[in-house]
Parts: sequence; C-alpha cells; structure tokens
Amino acid sequence: MLVPATMLSTLTDRRVRGSMPAPRNRPTLRDIAARAGVSETAASFALNGKPGVSEKTRRRVLDIVEELHWTPNHAAQVLSGARSMTIGLAVARNAQEVGSELFFLRLMTGMHTVLSRNRYGLLFQVVDSVGDELDLYRRWSDERRVDGVVLVDLRTDDPRPRVVNELGLPAILAGGPDPSGTVPAVSIDDAAAMRSVMEYLRDRGHTRVAYVSGSPTLLHVHRRVEAFLRSGRDYRLEAADVLQTDFSAPSAVRATQRLLATDSRPSAVIYDNEVLAVAGMGVIHAAGLRVPADVAIVACEDTPICAAVQPALTALHRDTSGFGADVAGHLLNLLDGNEDHGGQEKTPELVVRAST
Amino acid sequence: MLVPATMLSTLTDRRVRGSMPAPRNRPTLRDIAARAGVSETAASFALNGKPGVSEKTRRRVLDIVEELHWTPNHAAQVLSGARSMTIGLAVARNAQEVGSELFFLRLMTGMHTVLSRNRYGLLFQVVDSVGDELDLYRRWSDERRVDGVVLVDLRTDDPRPRVVNELGLPAILAGGPDPSGTVPAVSIDDAAAMRSVMEYLRDRGHTRVAYVSGSPTLLHVHRRVEAFLRSGRDYRLEAADVLQTDFSAPSAVRATQRLLATDSRPSAVIYDNEVLAVAGMGVIHAAGLRVPADVAIVACEDTPICAAVQPALTALHRDTSGFGADVAGHLLNLLDGNEDHGGQEKTPELVVRAST
Repeated sequence: MLVPATMLSTLTDRRVRGSMPAPRNRPTLRDIAARAGVSETAASFALNGKPGVSEKTRRRVLDIVEELHWTPNHAAQVLSGARSMTIGLAVARNAQEVGSELFFLRLMTGMHTVLSRNRYGLLFQVVDSVGDELDLYRRWSDERRVDGVVLVDLRTDDPRPRVVNELGLPAILAGGPDPSGTVPAVSIDDAAAMRSVMEYLRDRGHTRVAYVSGSPTLLHVHRRVEAFLRSGRDYRLEAADVLQTDFSAPSAVRATQRLLATDSRPSAVIYDNEVLAVAGMGVIHAAGLRVPADVAIVACEDTPICAAVQPALTALHRDTSGFGADVAGHLLNLLDGNEDHGGQEKTPELVVRAST
Repeated sequence: MLVPATMLSTLTDRRVRGSMPAPRNRPTLRDIAARAGVSETAASFALNGKPGVSEKTRRRVLDIVEELHWTPNHAAQVLSGARSMTIGLAVARNAQEVGSELFFLRLMTGMHTVLSRNRYGLLFQVVDSVGDELDLYRRWSDERRVDGVVLVDLRTDDPRPRVVNELGLPAILAGGPDPSGTVPAVSIDDAAAMRSVMEYLRDRGHTRVAYVSGSPTLLHVHRRVEAFLRSGRDYRLEAADVLQTDFSAPSAVRATQRLLATDSRPSAVIYDNEVLAVAGMGVIHAAGLRVPADVAIVACEDTPICAAVQPALTALHRDTSGFGADVAGHLLNLLDGNEDHGGQEKTPELVVRAST
C-alpha cells in the first residue's frame, strides 16, 4: 500500500468530547501583509531579513507578526525547499538488550537541549533489524521526512554509513569513529576508559581480572575488549577471561558462575553495565564470597542503581546528555552546509565506590 | 526570532566528505503520468483509489509507481490538507526524576509498534516545565507540526487537557483518567495494583506496612497513596507511614532511616520504583536487619534490576510496551475522525520474588 488509508481520510469537524476538535483559524502571510498595508512579497522580505524593504516597514511587519502570534507554516516551508526541521533517530534493538536503555533516553534528552533551541524536533523510531533500519532511511529520504539522521550502535561491517551516504542523507555517528570513514562521528574513547579501569585495578594490587562483556559485534564493545586484552599485557595483569553476554541478567549469572568455578578465580570482574554487575554480585555473594574483599567489581556504565546498591558499585561515569548535545550540534552544523569532521568526547571517568 | 537562521540558509551541493551530500533526483507525479501515458489528474485518481479511471489504467500506474520506487512527498501531502503523519510526545521532567526513565522508553517503543505500521513518526521533546510544555503545544499547533499529542504525567489541577482542547489538538492521556473529563485516557488501575500488594502482604502475615512514594502531585502516585491508606483500613493493616521522595536514591535512604528509627518498625515497605527499593534495602541491611525475614520489600515497577539484585525484588509488573501500543492506537482512531473514549489496561501483576 503506497498511500495509507489514514492519510486519505478527511478530518471531521465535530466538537463531540473525545472526537476531533475543530482546527483554529490561523492568520496567513496575506493577513499580515494586509494589516501592514504592504504586498505579500514585501511582508515576506521583511520577515526573512532580505533587502528591499525599509527598516520602518520591517518593524511594522514584525510588530504585527508578534501581535497575531503568527508562525510560518511548517509544511509550507518544507515545500519551498527549506527543511523538515526534523532529525531522525532509528534504533535497531531487541527487548533483551535492556541494559543500554537509559543510555538512549539520556542521549535523546541531551540532543533535545540543542535541537529545541534551534526549533528542530526528533523523530524516534524503533526497528527490528539493521535491514529494517535501512528501509526506514530510504522512506524518510523519499518522503523528505527528516533533514538528517543520527546513527547509533555501529556494528562490524555495518552497511548503514554507505547507505545513508548513497541516499544523500546527512548523518552523524553517535559513538565512533566509523571505520569506513564515510560518516563523521562524535566519538567516545572506550579504549582509554577501559585502560583507566585496568590501571586502577593494578594500582589496587589486583593480578587477575575478567571482563563480562556485551556482544563484540557492537563496535564499542569490540574496542573495549581489545583495550582490556592490550592493557592486561601492558599492566602485567592476567586478563585472560572475556565472557560475552547478551546484556541480560541470566547471562551475567552464568558468566560469573563460570568465573568462580575455575581454579584461578579472578580478583576483580569488570561488567559492561549495571544490570550485569548487580546480577554478578548476587552470584559472588551466594558463593559465600565478599565484595570487594574477595572479588572486586566495576561497572562500565554509571546509573542511579550503582550508587543505590550495597556495596555501591565503582563505575565509569559518562556525560551522556552532553554527548547527545554534541551529536546534535555537529549534525545541525552539517545541515547548515558546513564541513564537519565530528568530535571527540571527554573520556568517561571512574567513580570509585565500595565495590572495589 | 521567528524564522531560525538554519531554516533560511540554502543547502549546498558539495560532495566533500563530511559535508552535505547531493540530494537524489526523485521521480514526480508528472514522471509517473508521462510514463503511463495518462494525465497527472488520472494518475493521481489512480493512486488515491478514486473513481474515474479504468482498472487497467490504475494497474498500469501502480506498476510504474512500484518500478520507480515512488513515494508521495510528505510535505506536499501535509500542505494539501492531509496529515503531518507525526505524533507529539512532550515530557516535562527534571534530571532527578530518573526513576521513571525506563517507563518512558518502553512507552515510546510500544507506541512505535502501532505508529510505524501506520507510517506515523513520533516527535519526542523534553521540556523544563508544564508551562514550557504548553508553549510547545501552541507552537506545534501553529506550525501544524503534529497531528495529535500524547499527554503523560498528569498532575493535580493540570492545565494541559484544557489547553490542548482549546488548541484543537487531538490528544490521548497515557495513564488516566483525566479528572476534568476533557481528554480521553488509556488508564491503568494503580489503585487496584496497590490493593493487590496490600492483600498479598496481609496474607503473608504482615501487620504494619509503610509506603515510600514519589511525589503525590503526580496523579498516579496520588491514586496509589489513597489506595494504600484505604486498603490498609480494609485489610486491618497498620498503614500509617507514607514517606514522600523525589524518586532519588538519597531520598529513599533518608525515608528508610526514618522508618527504622521509629519504635514501631514496619514489617514490610513498598517502594515506588526499583531505585528506591534497592537504596532502601541497603539501609535495612546496614542496620543489621534481614530482607525478607525482618523487613519485606516490594517495588511498584518491575525492571531487569529487580530480578538481578540479591535478594530479588518482588515487584508489580506492567506491560508498558503494550500500554504504549494501546495509547497510540486510540490516538490514531481519534485522528481517523472516530469517537474514542480511551480504554483500560490490565492491572499490573505482582511478581513474587525473594524479597517478601
């Protein structure tokens, strides 16, 4: 179906409670011009700050505009070749990957601090797969629904940078860099953050460390895994165990049980987020071990739960709202026709609490 | 400033990496008509399923449309009196109120299951206050930016139902009912859910129960507080203590400390969400008391943390995604010009775990 039925039905004008209310009468550019006693062209020039109208006329038009609470019709501006004033954010995820949900909400609220100031809206959509996400970008592009998109959760061999580029859809990658060099990115140095955790653990006298990670098909997890193994060598820590999870608590329970079952139990475990860390801590306690005396715990994502749980969790703290604001800023810069090579965020800092 | 500078700048056509890519050539209705050998009017009639064109012509036009991957221009459809195909969701909240964040993300993902199927997008915006939210609705309405809105977090004496009604902006309240009867609502029976918790606690032999709540200016919290007090009387439980928090862990710590400092310590505590419950459990353990042997704990919001923490938290489980889907469905029904009186969701169910 090309034109959905809901698009074709006409809006009714009933004032019954719970039915469609009647639309208000909105002043038009013609009304503005008439009241100011100038042509529509002159009114439009005055509004858009173009030369050709006197300062006096400009002032009169703007006063009337203010008086009538006039705002330019959004759709008319889009048609006239301007923008849709909308940024698209699609997330391909399944219900299991709940661990990063707070990340997405904070990313969005951060983006809004910049978007709202510039009168941009965010069109947010959840899709089942990367394939569906590509279809969505094609549709958004065809319908000129969005002016640009923010890519998240880049995977290894990800087709999305190439496709948005082919579509001519301006894009910024939130969390990069893009290995293909196609899309500018706002990056977080996940490797440096992981190194800071490992350095801290070495300084606390740990010798054998394990990492309970998310899926390394996600590039940021992949980078953390590599940094974990490399810094293990650099700091002469035994960093042999990387146990992969699907970000679910039962998966973290199984991984932790395996770690405790080995002869050479780690003295510290790094978990990719707070759900994994809390689940792991339960297994450690159930085994009759103490946190941090027997096993220290670090979470890679600081949330209110990290401070609330007992013992409170040492965690990597990132400014996700600030990250979102920067992502939006770079995308708007691109939309203004400027070159933009993305940026680099402050490395997440380790907040030390009772679990280490 | 009425017309933002970003709206006025013209898009450039450079193909430099990190700059605006060139837009694709999109086929127009004229291209379709020319290729089919019919007039634009006939092509349009064929597309929109109107009478006046032969079945053969209609078939030919649709085949060409499919071949060219043509989609109707979104903005043109809006201007022609159709829809913006966008639903607005504004949330007035401060950074402290993190407790319900997962709720909002789940609400949105649920809404998308229905919106995406109907080609609607969601415009999500975070604002500082209810006043800013009202300004946003006025702007959205002026600019015809959205076809309707979803109201959340209704407060006591909330001006929003009246204002969206005056604006002629179709709206559904997520979580109701609206005491003023202005806006149809999809409701969750928070009172019945709270009663089920109290009944369960009575059956487990508890006699004195406390409730660590969020702010009762939020209507759903207000309803829970009332149900807590009423069912306390009905079930002959001492339900004297309602301690109000701002959904933050430190606030829950203070509330729990106050509860434990009294002569008549409660045998069970109900917390409004999982962050409050986890923080409270820490205080109880720190006081040398055991959960659930000395104090049982219930959380009013089931999240992955509730199952991950030790002891795992008994919690009220709600289908927030299903709720979001229903909210979107009722709003689309309104937009189709139908009467809609909202609906009632399944009452959240108590998931019993080790904390009680």
